[in-house]
Amino acid sequence: MKISARNVFEGEIENVEVGAVMANVKIKIESPELITAIITKESVEKLDLKKGDTVSAIIKSTEIIVGKE
Amino acid sequence: MKISARNVFEGEIENVEVGAVMANVKIKIESPELITAIITKESVEKLDLKKGDTVSAIIKSTEIIVGKE
Amino acid sequence: MKISARNVFEGEIENVEVGAVMANVKIKIESPELITAIITKESVEKLDLKKGDTVSAIIKSTEIIVGKE
Amino acid sequence: MKISARNVFEGEIENVEVGAVMANVKIKIESPELITAIITKESVEKLDLKKGDTVSAIIKSTEIIVGKE
Amino acid sequence: MKISARNVFEGEIENVEVGAVMANVKIKIESPELITAIITKESVEKLDLKKGDTVSAIIKSTEIIVGKE
Amino acid sequence: MKISARNVFEGEIENVEVGAVMANVKIKIESPELITAIITKESVEKLDLKKGDTVSAIIKSTEIIVGKE
Repeated sequence: MKISARNVFEGEIENVEVGAVMANVKIKIESPELITAIITKESVEKLDLKKGDTVSAIIKSTEIIVGKE
Repeated sequence: MKISARNVFEGEIENVEVGAVMANVKIKIESPELITAIITKESVEKLDLKKGDTVSAIIKSTEIIVGKE
Repeated sequence: MKISARNVFEGEIENVEVGAVMANVKIKIESPELITAIITKESVEKLDLKKGDTVSAIIKSTEIIVGKE
Repeated sequence: MKISARNVFEGEIENVEVGAVMANVKIKIESPELITAIITKESVEKLDLKKGDTVSAIIKSTEIIVGKE
Repeated sequence: MKISARNVFEGEIENVEVGAVMANVKIKIESPELITAIITKESVEKLDLKKGDTVSAIIKSTEIIVGKE
Repeated sequence: MKISARNVFEGEIENVEVGAVMANVKIKIESPELITAIITKESVEKLDLKKGDTVSAIIKSTEIIVGKE
């Protein structure tokens, strides 16, 4: 299945910590990746984002889906 | 500022494409990273996730925040 | 109250499992529904999405809000 | 690939509307489904959610990923 | 309808900017509010979060649903 | 660091409740704020949203990131 999510990174699980309802999974990504971020035009202008800028991609851990073959 | 988001990846912007309201930003991550994913205990059991498994971290591009110094 | 969220599905709770902070709620949807998904133009092109295609709508359980009259 | 997202609904695309950066995709789900929602224990208590309650599952359209075989 | 979302803030629309698919809506909140954030235990420990700390609540604009009576 | 997230509200932590994996953090926002919401054009039309309307901004608590200097 191909999916619309633009960011799919392969890696190896380093740790799984399980609670009553939720779990915390650590995945070691094997290689550098290209990340696609959709943000507002307003943010591009306020932060003056342009090719070559050094930036951070910030992702809350609850937003990540895990896939396994 | 330190933030609660467990995933903060540094990289360089490769491309910015701007629409009327939204924009698509491509960021090249410079090095492999450890990703933290919070998923249900139910998923850990159904996918039988454990240390050493090869998995994918899947992230929709609308979930990514961009930071710049 | 009318809300901007395009997807509001009625159903009956089948199960509630409560942890220390979070809870897992199962809801049986009573009838087929039309789902609205906002994705990138890039994904529409890469997956060649068009009217009549058989697809899956994938939703992480942390993204769902529950409403009750 | 099996994925941790608890909600995967099959359906047929009814319409695709493409903008400069984003697109709006309508998917007709073919059969009733069981939805898994992760919410706070606090909400379960404040809304007094229990088996048999009639509720709504509310999902913002930006949270939905589309998959295609 | 009561909803599980813990954060519902009343306000007045200051501006609406409409694109091809998406729109940017500015809402002026009328009074200070109590925000509920669900984060990892790991983040509470790494940031040493405790009663009385001055912090910021950071919310991406795509995560906000608008309701109107 | 400046971030693309349009909503950054300062406040004081009123309470922290920690579970096995997740935690619930209450933050008292000190002053009224302008909220930016990105929704579909379709929702703007269906709810007839315009300057001066009284509306609610609805945010699920799992979507909030906490920052601390």
